[in-house]
Amino acid sequence: MPKKPLILVTNDDGINAPGIRALIEVLTDIGDVVVVAPDSPQSGMGHAITIDSTLYVERVIVDNDKQIEYSCSGTPADCVKLGIREVLDRKPDLCVSGINHGSNSSINVIYSGTMSAAIEAGIEGIPAIGFSLLNYKWNADFNATKPYVKIISEMVLKHGLPNGIVLNVNIPDLLKKDIKGIKICRQAKANWVEEFDKRKNPQGRDYYWLTGKFVNLDHGEDTDEWALEHGYVSVVPVQFDLTAYHYIKNLNSWNLND
Amino acid sequence: MPKKPLILVTNDDGINAPGIRALIEVLTDIGDVVVVAPDSPQSGMGHAITIDSTLYVERVIVDNDKQIEYSCSGTPADCVKLGIREVLDRKPDLCVSGINHGSNSSINVIYSGTMSAAIEAGIEGIPAIGFSLLNYKWNADFNATKPYVKIISEMVLKHGLPNGIVLNVNIPDLLKKDIKGIKICRQAKANWVEEFDKRKNPQGRDYYWLTGKFVNLDHGEDTDEWALEHGYVSVVPVQFDLTAYHYIKNLNSWNLND
Repeated sequence: MPKKPLILVTNDDGINAPGIRALIEVLTDIGDVVVVAPDSPQSGMGHAITIDSTLYVERVIVDNDKQIEYSCSGTPADCVKLGIREVLDRKPDLCVSGINHGSNSSINVIYSGTMSAAIEAGIEGIPAIGFSLLNYKWNADFNATKPYVKIISEMVLKHGLPNGIVLNVNIPDLLKKDIKGIKICRQAKANWVEEFDKRKNPQGRDYYWLTGKFVNLDHGEDTDEWALEHGYVSVVPVQFDLTAYHYIKNLNSWNLND
Repeated sequence: MPKKPLILVTNDDGINAPGIRALIEVLTDIGDVVVVAPDSPQSGMGHAITIDSTLYVERVIVDNDKQIEYSCSGTPADCVKLGIREVLDRKPDLCVSGINHGSNSSINVIYSGTMSAAIEAGIEGIPAIGFSLLNYKWNADFNATKPYVKIISEMVLKHGLPNGIVLNVNIPDLLKKDIKGIKICRQAKANWVEEFDKRKNPQGRDYYWLTGKFVNLDHGEDTDEWALEHGYVSVVPVQFDLTAYHYIKNLNSWNLND
């Protein structure tokens, strides 16, 4: 019998989030699953790592499914680093992060702890995927996401991914019958327009809550936002070589050494 | 007399760091400088934002130069968001982050709070630069960086930058006479090989410190690592559209909808 693939699972909503439970349920059917996930929610952590503080990781049992689980005091990127170096005894065949409670489409990829974990695995040369559902609620229904988690994870195990590329998968918050299929997309040029909610604390000092409105001015029909609005699961290949190659020639024409 | 450019300055080492003081000293000569910087060090914060906690920002006087300064309880990305929406009365002409105490070349751009601030400004459509010196010490000598901060900032003010691109500038830790000039580069394919330092706390519980070795297996002579090793200031144009466009066709050939 061929060896089952080893799958490292993490997320940014914390090890007890329903989203990671749905992910584990699907992945234990296709591989040996080891979970190393944050012990508390880490949303909006971007690609933070813990360099000025200590890290704890400990074996935990959250449910009685087949996976082995570790809870970690660090960020999603820390979980992947610790999982690879200290927890697993061999390099995993796949790293899957999520399922995030809320969208990581378009510019959200930059702020996303879910995607930072997938990117961290990609940096380590491990095929990696981040999954997100467009429903930020704790009690969101993840049932419709499961067939998509399964097929995309299986296909990444089958085809692999080239060095330097991970997948950002977002799933619309629809019933299974209303999801139209999967679309390979580019990241939409959309962003948040922040609106700070200014308040006074009981001592009279001003403080702010970050809030904002998501604005998509990108009318392309090849974007993740378009796909999601039209009922498709979006898959964006994401790279972590951030070089804007097309602009190198322009910068050289500035003659900065003259 | 033409209006002086408005320059928003931030960093990730905190408002009292010598690196940001060097930056302010140079930039007050070429524009009106407003500083909105973290009240404490934020290194390794990646593109973290504060969504589950409150933010404070308050006017402070750190030295008696010409800039106006605000200290903020948030991350570098928070500082830029708050600076633009709540502190400044018009859109800045330039945002400059740094000078970081330590390298943000190659893969470090992903973990960098300094660069997350520049990228946040870029998302807001503001020309932006992150500067870093290859010396992580608090008492590093920033004198040799100053002419490079000046020329690169002036050139960005003159030429602008297209939407979606910011500059990642790293400066070797050399005497002024030993720096050979400026090179436009791509991000080297280098990364950290983590080594966790495992210890026991006084209660007998295992914990870890994240440490690691930087490994550059990229032998290209057009990379930021090559430039820095050879005594040049490296300038990498960085984009935050992370789409790996060249891989979209391959993914389509997987026929995920069959």
